[in-house]
Formats: sequence, C-alpha cells, structure tokens
Amino acid sequence: MMFASDNAGPAAPELMQAVMAANEGPAMPYGADPLTASVRDRVREIFEAPAAEAFLVATGTAANALALGALVQPWQTVFCHRHAHVEEDECGAPEFYTGGAKLTLLEGDHARIEPQALARALAFTARAGVHNVQKGALSITQATELGAVYSPDQVRALSAIAREHGVPVHMDGTRFSNAVARLGCTPAELTWKAGVDVLCLGASKCGAMAAEAVIFFDAEAARTWEFQLRRKRGGHLFSKMRYVAAQMDRWLTDGLWLELAGRANAAADRLAAGLGEGNLATLMHPVEANALFAALPRSAHQRLHAAGAKYYLWPFDQPLEGPGDEMLTCRLVCNWATTEAEVDAFVNTARG
Amino acid sequence: MMFASDNAGPAAPELMQAVMAANEGPAMPYGADPLTASVRDRVREIFEAPAAEAFLVATGTAANALALGALVQPWQTVFCHRHAHVEEDECGAPEFYTGGAKLTLLEGDHARIEPQALARALAFTARAGVHNVQKGALSITQATELGAVYSPDQVRALSAIAREHGVPVHMDGTRFSNAVARLGCTPAELTWKAGVDVLCLGASKCGAMAAEAVIFFDAEAARTWEFQLRRKRGGHLFSKMRYVAAQMDRWLTDGLWLELAGRANAAADRLAAGLGEGNLATLMHPVEANALFAALPRSAHQRLHAAGAKYYLWPFDQPLEGPGDEMLTCRLVCNWATTEAEVDAFVNTARG
Amino acid sequence: MMFASDNAGPAAPELMQAVMAANEGPAMPYGADPLTASVRDRVREIFEAPAAEAFLVATGTAANALALGALVQPWQTVFCHRHAHVEEDECGAPEFYTGGAKLTLLEGDHARIEPQALARALAFTARAGVHNVQKGALSITQATELGAVYSPDQVRALSAIAREHGVPVHMDGTRFSNAVARLGCTPAELTWKAGVDVLCLGASKCGAMAAEAVIFFDAEAARTWEFQLRRKRGGHLFSKMRYVAAQMDRWLTDGLWLELAGRANAAADRLAAGLGEGNLATLMHPVEANALFAALPRSAHQRLHAAGAKYYLWPFDQPLEGPGDEMLTCRLVCNWATTEAEVDAFVNTARG
Amino acid sequence: MMFASDNAGPAAPELMQAVMAANEGPAMPYGADPLTASVRDRVREIFEAPAAEAFLVATGTAANALALGALVQPWQTVFCHRHAHVEEDECGAPEFYTGGAKLTLLEGDHARIEPQALARALAFTARAGVHNVQKGALSITQATELGAVYSPDQVRALSAIAREHGVPVHMDGTRFSNAVARLGCTPAELTWKAGVDVLCLGASKCGAMAAEAVIFFDAEAARTWEFQLRRKRGGHLFSKMRYVAAQMDRWLTDGLWLELAGRANAAADRLAAGLGEGNLATLMHPVEANALFAALPRSAHQRLHAAGAKYYLWPFDQPLEGPGDEMLTCRLVCNWATTEAEVDAFVNTARG
Repeated sequence: MMFASDNAGPAAPELMQAVMAANEGPAMPYGADPLTASVRDRVREIFEAPAAEAFLVATGTAANALALGALVQPWQTVFCHRHAHVEEDECGAPEFYTGGAKLTLLEGDHARIEPQALARALAFTARAGVHNVQKGALSITQATELGAVYSPDQVRALSAIAREHGVPVHMDGTRFSNAVARLGCTPAELTWKAGVDVLCLGASKCGAMAAEAVIFFDAEAARTWEFQLRRKRGGHLFSKMRYVAAQMDRWLTDGLWLELAGRANAAADRLAAGLGEGNLATLMHPVEANALFAALPRSAHQRLHAAGAKYYLWPFDQPLEGPGDEMLTCRLVCNWATTEAEVDAFVNTARG
Repeated sequence: MMFASDNAGPAAPELMQAVMAANEGPAMPYGADPLTASVRDRVREIFEAPAAEAFLVATGTAANALALGALVQPWQTVFCHRHAHVEEDECGAPEFYTGGAKLTLLEGDHARIEPQALARALAFTARAGVHNVQKGALSITQATELGAVYSPDQVRALSAIAREHGVPVHMDGTRFSNAVARLGCTPAELTWKAGVDVLCLGASKCGAMAAEAVIFFDAEAARTWEFQLRRKRGGHLFSKMRYVAAQMDRWLTDGLWLELAGRANAAADRLAAGLGEGNLATLMHPVEANALFAALPRSAHQRLHAAGAKYYLWPFDQPLEGPGDEMLTCRLVCNWATTEAEVDAFVNTARG
Repeated sequence: MMFASDNAGPAAPELMQAVMAANEGPAMPYGADPLTASVRDRVREIFEAPAAEAFLVATGTAANALALGALVQPWQTVFCHRHAHVEEDECGAPEFYTGGAKLTLLEGDHARIEPQALARALAFTARAGVHNVQKGALSITQATELGAVYSPDQVRALSAIAREHGVPVHMDGTRFSNAVARLGCTPAELTWKAGVDVLCLGASKCGAMAAEAVIFFDAEAARTWEFQLRRKRGGHLFSKMRYVAAQMDRWLTDGLWLELAGRANAAADRLAAGLGEGNLATLMHPVEANALFAALPRSAHQRLHAAGAKYYLWPFDQPLEGPGDEMLTCRLVCNWATTEAEVDAFVNTARG
Repeated sequence: MMFASDNAGPAAPELMQAVMAANEGPAMPYGADPLTASVRDRVREIFEAPAAEAFLVATGTAANALALGALVQPWQTVFCHRHAHVEEDECGAPEFYTGGAKLTLLEGDHARIEPQALARALAFTARAGVHNVQKGALSITQATELGAVYSPDQVRALSAIAREHGVPVHMDGTRFSNAVARLGCTPAELTWKAGVDVLCLGASKCGAMAAEAVIFFDAEAARTWEFQLRRKRGGHLFSKMRYVAAQMDRWLTDGLWLELAGRANAAADRLAAGLGEGNLATLMHPVEANALFAALPRSAHQRLHAAGAKYYLWPFDQPLEGPGDEMLTCRLVCNWATTEAEVDAFVNTARG
C-alpha cells in the first residue's frame, strides 16, 4: 500500500527494456546519439511542433529551474501559485538558476492560479520602477500540486494575461501526462496552442527511472544554445545521454506515456470512490490527476499505519496519536503501477 | 574503433542487471531506499572510513561543482592545474556552484600539479588582504586529464602544502578507479590517508550509465546537511535514487570497479605498445591510466578516419587535410569494453 | 513643499563642515584613517556595546543586502513584512547578496510584523526537509515603511520567537534615528538588549549625504572578516573612507542624529495635526516617525500639485484627474530640514 | 611623503565647493536632479558622443564589476591582463556581478595586454563547445596597474581583435584622466574611436571624494535600463545622487580633470627624475601616468620608513630588515596634491 508519492513507484518494464536495448556497443556522448535525436522527433510530432527543441535532464527540479533560468533575469520575478512545486519543494532551485529572481505567490483554489490574481499582480509589477523587481515569467503547474488540472481554456486565459504584459509562460509538467490523459485533449492544445512557451515534461513520476524533457516550442526565440550552456554549467548534461533518451523515447512511443498516466489516474479514481462510500472520507480537492487529498478519522489513519500503508499526513504535523477521532487530512498519490488490489486493501483497512 | 572518450562506451552488464533487479515494486524516494544505504556502507568499507558519507549524483561535473561549492566561499579561489577538468571542461560549473569563486591555475607536467607551483601560489594568496580573493581549496584530478596518475606520495606532498595553509583538498576522481587499478595501492592510501577531504568518485566513465559518489571522509566537519541542500537546490537529488544507487552498489561489489578499470588500462597499454612498435607514434605523456596522447603521421590519421575510427585530434584545430605527412597529435581513450581486436585494428590501420 | 521623500532633503551643515574638515592632507585609504576608527568608538559608546563593530557603506540597500548576505545562506529564507523595504524597494538586492535566498512575507498592521504571523511561519519552516528552503533570519524595519515604530517590547517579542528557532535578527534601521527620537528609549534598549544581532543604521535619510553603518553587536560571532570581504566584493569598500566616516562621526556626536530626527518627526506631527483639523484628511497609519499616509479629497491634491508640492500618491496609480472629489491616498515624508512654514503652506494649500 | 596610493590624497577644493553648492534645499533623489543631467551632458560633449549615457557610482570596483556584468554572461570569460585590477584587486567583484564568469589572464609587458596573446586566447575560445566557457568581453586597464598607458593605436589594435570575434570592449579607466593628460589625445580618440564600448571613468583617485561614471557610448545597444536595474540591485544607486554628481560635474568642467591628472603625472616625472639621478634607483616600468615602480637599496628604504614616508614595497613580502643592501622594489604613486617639496624630500631622504 504505497501512496507516499508517484516517485515511489517502479519504472515501467517497457522503458527498462529500451534502456537495455540502448546498451549495445559504443555511442557518441552528450546527446550526439540516435536516441536523443529520436526524442526530439517524437516531441515534434506529438506536439505538432516542427520547430520545437527538446533537451533532456534527469530531475523535475533541474528541468524547472533551468527553464526558468532561461526565461527570467535575476532582477525579475516568476508569477506562480503559492503552492507551486517551484516555490515549495525545490529548495530554492529557481532562485539558484535564475541568479536570484523572486517568486511572486498567487492564490487560487486547488493550487490553480486564479486569473484575477495574476492580472492584479502583473498590473502591479508592470508599474515597477528601478527600485522594484520586474515582471519575469508566468509558471503554471500542470497537474497542480493539489491534484487538479487546468483545462486548455484555463491555460489560455492565464497565458493571455501574461502575453498582454509580454511575459513568457512556463509549464511545470511533472504530471503533464496525467493531465492530458484526464482531459483527453491533444498535447498541443494544452501547451503552445494555449500560449505555453516552455514545457517541462516529466516522465520520472510516471514510468521512467529518471527522464525529463525541457521543450521549447519556439526554439529560435528561446536562444537554445544558451540553454545548453546553462544545462552543462548546472552539471545536467549527461555524458551517456542515450540511457536517458532511451527512456523518454520509449515513453513517448505508441502512446505509452498516456497509458501509464491513465492507469495512475484510474487508481486515484478508484481510491476516491472507495473512500467516498459511506462518507468514510471527505475529499478536499477534485481528483483530476493521480492524487487525492482526503480527510479521514484518526482511527482510520491508525489502522492504515499499523498495516504498513505508506502515505503522508498533509500537512505533516498532525498528531497521529491523540484522544479523539477527529478527521486528519492526508495526501494519497497513485502511480502507474498501483494495483486495484492495493487500492482496495487501502480502502478496506481504512474502513476497519 | 571507438577511442573518442570512455564516455562513449556502454554500461557493464553487471550494472545493468543490478538496475533491473532494483526495479521491483515500490521504494521510498530521494535516497531513503536500501540500495542507497548499501552504497554508503560499501564506501565506508572499501575506503576504511567508518565515518565517511557518500552522496550520489549522476554527472562528474555535478559532483565536482557541488563538492567545491561545499568547500569554497564565493570570495575564495580553487587551486588546480591549468588543464584540470574543472577549469577546462565544465563550462564554469565550479564558478556557478561556488557563487563565483575563482580558479587559480597551476603548472606541472602531464597535467599533474607541480608542488612548487602550489606552494608559490598558496604563499602568494596567504598574504591576501581585503582586496584580494582568498585561499579556498586544492583540487587534484586523479587520473589527470593527460592520462597520468598521482602516486600516494605525490598526493600527500600536495596535501601537506595545502594543510599548512588550512586549505581543504578535493579530488576529482572521475577516473579514480583507473588510478587505483594502475597503482595497486588501497583506496584509502590514495585519498584520506594522503590528505584528501572529499573525493568525487566516478563510475560513469567506467561501466555505469550515470553514477558518481561525492565522498566526505570526515562527514561531521563537512556539514553534509548543507551538502544535501546544495544537491537538491542544484536539481541533483534524484527521486528514484535506487536506480543510481544500484549501479554504484554493484560497481563497488566484488572488486568489479577495479576489474573494469583494469581492462581499460590494459587496452591503453596494448594500444601504446602497438603504436610504439617501429616508432609509428610518439607518446606525449606517460600512459598511466586509460588514455593515450600520441603523435601520428597525417597519413595514418587519414587512414584511420577513412576506416571510421572515432577519436579527437588534440588540440582540435589541426588540419587533417594537408600537403605533408607531418605528425598530428591526438587523444585516444580506452574504456572497459574496448577489445583487443579493436585495439589491434586501430594499430594496423594506423600502420597502413 | 517637498514631501516626496526624506531622501530629497539636503545634508545638515554640521555634516558638511565635518566633511570639509576631513579634507586636510593625505589619509590612509579603505578605512585605515582616524575618522573611521572614531565612528566605531562612537557606536560602541552610544550603543553601550564595547564589542560591537561598525562598517560603513553609502546606501541603505547596500547595508541591508550585505547584512542579510552575512546572516543567511542561499538556501534559506528571510522573514520580513510584506511591505518591508528589503522586499519592495531594493530590486532584489537581498536575493543578489545572499546568493538567491528567499523572502518569506509576513502580515501585520502598519507594516509591523505580527508576532503570531512570525511564529506560524517559523514553525512551518522549522519542519523543512531537504526539499524546502530553510529558516534564515528575521528582518525588522524600524521605523516601518508605513511610518510606525516598534517599541522595545515589540522588538523583543519578535526576537524571542526568532531565538527559539535559532534565527538571527536583522534590523533595517534606515529610519532608526526617527524611532529612537520618538520612543525616547536608549539605542541599546531598541537593539541588542531587545535581541537584535545586526543593525543597519542609516544617516542618509536624516542629514547625511550618504552614510550608513552596519553594526554587528557581537562581532566575534558575526565573522566580520567575511563581512569585509563581502563589502569589498560588492564594490562598497570606499577608498577615501574618511569622507563617509566624517559624516557618520559628526552625526553621532553630541546627539545631533537624534536632534535631526526629532525635527523630522516634529514636522510630521505638525503636518498631521494641520491636516487633521476639521477632518480635512484621514490618517491611515499612526504617525510615529517622520512620514504620514493620508487620504485627501482629489480637489486638495489638485491644488497641491498646481502649487508645486512634491509627494507621491500611494499607491501610485490613483488618477489625479477624475470627475468626483473622492479621497485619494498619499505618502508625505518630512525630513530634518522641513520647515514649519513648508508644513503650514502644505496644509493651507490642501485646505484651499 | 605620501606615496602609498593616489587614494590617499585629499579631494580637490573645487570639487568640495561644488558639493557644498549642491547642498541647497531639496532635490529629487536617485538621479532625477539637474546635476546628474549635467554630468551626462558634459560626458556627451567631452567625448563627442551625443548618444552616450553615463551612470554614476562611487567606487571603481563597482563601476568595473557592474559594467562587466552588463557585458558578460555567467558562462563567458573576460579577457584581461594578468595584473589587471579586475583580476587582482577587486576580491572577485567581477565574478560576483557577472554571476560567476571567468577571467582569462593574458600576458604583456608593463601590464599592457600583448595583442598576440589576446589573439591566441580568443582564437582558442572561439572554438569552445558546450563544455567550455565562452568568449565574453575584453577588458583594458588604462592606465595600467604598472603605470603604463595604451596609445590610441594600441587600444585600437586590441579592439580590432576583439571585434573580429564579436566581443565587446570594456575600459577600466580608474586612471583614464592620467592617460589622457599624458597622451594629449582626445578622450574620444582613446575610447569609442578606438573601439571601446564602455568606459569606467574614475575621478576618485584624482580629486574627487568618491565619483565614478560608467559610460556607454552606444546606449541603445547597451540596454542601459538593465544596467540601471543592476546598479540598484547592487546597492549602488545613491538616493542623494546630487552629491556624487556635483563632484563629477565640476571635475569635468573647464578641463579640471586633466589639470589635476597632469599634476599627478608631473609629480611622478619629477620623482622619477630625482630617483634616477646618479642611478640611485632603477625604474622597472616606464613612467607614463602617475605611478613609479622602482628598485632602491634597502638602506634607502630604511631611511624612508624612518622618516615616515608612506608607500608599499612591491611585492609586499620583501623584508625591510636584512643584512645586505640589496635592491628592494617598491610602488610610488603620486596624486594631484603631491607637492614638489614632498617629492624632493622623498628623493633626498632616499639619497641619504
């Protein structure tokens, strides 16, 4: 019963086989290998973006921070949700890679940026003088840290506000596959057609060992040579790139990425349904990707912990031990390998 | 005939099998898995250093830059050889991770730092006032970028000079395994017993897909919690750490690391011997690890290129085409998988 | 009628004379002159802090950013008010000098940090793991950006919370003199006796041309040699330091600093009283230092602008032209040289 | 007998009077005052550069580091002389303000960059790939740190090499006035007409208390708005700018800057002549600005120190006490206020 993180899941066997297959004889290093070229081609095709460039790295934090570094000057600010991963869970990597830019925190339900909040913040920053941090970029997390997704229309609404102010749009797509699988739209509709300039596309949480692609939809505008220097300078240029590329290449082949994401989403749905029966649990956010945020009675948590279930109380500091049976809130994340049996066991244990 | 880089070689099958074996069910992310713990234990045993801590990253540049960042303040300088990897081939990663420290470049044959050069530079910097960059750390590359190694005595001589000035010692051990395999000494004799504080131990060039360990021999002094924050902030904390750990763990098991390194070294020796026969080639540096730097007649290079041999003229800008048959210098790097047949084919083609 | 900023005021003649007197013959540069030594001695005496060290710079932004750089690591965060100068008006200088630290924004009336807000934020950050920015320092602005002051008790309350978490306390004292003049307490009571570790003491807004002192009350703990390197590296070590020192030295002599501050405060009081008569204006914050934040009818603003009065509508984007006579808010800052006549002219013009 | 540094000299009375005159009533802060505008106009006129922009700061280190920050990306390198001030005496400020760029050190007599050395270094860096630091800017120190000057032809020769590689040219003109006074050329001939893009023009060493101008000859290309943000972010935007501007404005009026520089140069000439008589001293570099580097017998140094003469043995670590009377080398810097009597006293004391 592993619901601590989608990071805790294994890699998909298809990707492992692809890595094995890549381990044949020599290959030129640093991305001058055929698999890396293939990834770029697949990205261009899947995103209907023939001019796109894709650069591989191995962690989501690296992808986000490098992308923001390419978009934002040190004296500018990134507009993001208060609960964005770039704000809360990257130990200041965006600040490091931008050379000390600021993050301006916006409100919005379910960690989705509220358009009015963005508009207000941009209007304020647009008046900035020499004493003030300048407008930099908009960063959207898709799916959000609270398990919601932005529809193409919602992305477009935010991007339009950003464009009015000449501000580029970054999408943290660590769970982009979960969002596409849920929404049923095309990858293009959810990104460049909706105004996104740079997508950090994550496979690590959904079937890869470690593989992320930073995708510039307009590579020319993006000065991607600078990006490559930044990647090297950050220590993120893999010598044996073929092994990272092999994962991403296979993931993007034959719709596997959406299949895996769909499985994780389905597990979350099943879990939500199970916990919802008889009002055992209260959901705190809509279940639109592969994570649930639910309130359960303390006694249920105690049973689950006793049974070895892995997940986090959310926020962390709620006492598992205590006199009453009040509701404690938790985060439950499914991954592509989460089984129905695992979900059912969790529900049954919670139910007691 | 792949001699472009040891990075161009494949991963060793033993490591690939270990990665496959690690892909079983869930595992807690970010290093809270049993394989990461096992790596630490193996490092402690192999280096006879029960207090050592080892932190995994995936590129040599990340390892070096993070380690130097932990040792050196922004207003300090790193003493290294003019031809050190940290100076020449990391696109300023040490400057990035230290927050803008300087590198003071030292001379010495075969890219080995000459002790007198270090002593002079440290004596000069020791007089630094508030206007000047301060002494920071010594960085030793083992094996050197020109294929030589430092003996334990040579390391000790440099470290002693550093210690006189209170300066910590970093070892860039991207090819540390080649050095140990060549010297036949213990890993401890070549590191902490010789005064090294931090070793960046590289497996990526010698059998891994991507695995490097930053080893602090005195973890308490090293404020390793800070190092972990730096690693995360740099985007180098892998969520699915088990796959990096599986490689390093297997590499360090049953002496495999030294066996693989020994194979690469032996291939280099065979290549040197073959090219040396009849004075076909002139060696420019002693062959003490797995790389050769040799001068060959232009005609030999032309035959080799025609036959598809992969390697670099060194420096890059020597014209392969030209009227005469003068000697052009090149770098030839063997890896653990270089075969005798490959070496012999190279020699025979060169000979014409 | 200059109420745009206390920066717009002239320098006090006493300080100008001191600068002239300092311009006699040669003097050793970079602070090795007698006036710089005298400043340190005066600081020690006035603050009853025999171990204090004081370092001179020329702008408040430099003082704050250098001080925070000395207290905070790149992966940490500074706790400050949402409307602190370090957040709003330094173009990211704290981020630059800390190497990319974050600022955690706290609420509180009149730009005074609410102790509960600090306690909550610190408690949250205290649980930070490797993925999160760590607790760094508390920064208190005295007087606040909205013209209020912290009493010694209020400073102590905040410092006590910081200390519980092992977090040092920085005071942005750009208008510290105004606060002391208002409160009537001793400088020590308002700083180290109330838990402040580092004070940035500003004279530039209150009679100097350009002079700020960064005061470390416990110089040994503060590694002030590092501070001096940071100051040099930031380009803030003046060669002809005597001219900066002369200003600060005279300012701190014979209570001149408090006399000048008291004049600015008195002008603000007079202005508040004048505008308050007959409810012409509504004050938005208590007048505790030398600034007012007031709402006046649009017609009054129009008269004032026509008469050449200099001050800012606050926020900037309220339209001076418009159909109705609604209240528009503004900031009015007095300086040591603001005359009663100037104040009265302003009030009379506003009254119409 | 003050020959320690031109920084040790007083400010010229004309500049002090201008500062006093500027202290009249209020003035809008941060450069929105008439004196700041006047400086810009004078710069445009004196340099025959109607599109130039000039930004004031207060230290030479700030001027250089901010200018290089505007020209150079973090992953690039600055080509400068091994003995440039930016390399040796700014505690890494260029590294700080560029975000971690490198400095590539070039050779050349008398701290003048040898054109062949620049050409070789640029040719090498021009071949840089993604692993290597990229070409950034050329930095020329005028006059050099060893008291020599570049002629307009010499500047043009270096700039031409830089231009071939698309690299902008920075001039550290801390002692630019000394160079112009010596060469008798126009300021334009020595800067933009010879290929210089940005000049850091220093008055602090030649009559000001603290005033430096960063001059962009092609302000449009230079993105000077970014420069202003950098200046603020670095803490170098003075609130009461008028006092810095008053100095620079007066200095540039009626040729005062060249008159003061000429006095310092003449004092150096007289000192050189006096020490040269009877071969008392050996000059180590041509005396082309206001500094001498001379070898004198130890006994002469001992007499001078006993008589209270202030100057530095150069390098610092030569023992003043010792058995023999060998030659010890020293640096002797004259300033605008150095008198003939002071020079003669020094010579006579040295002579014994």
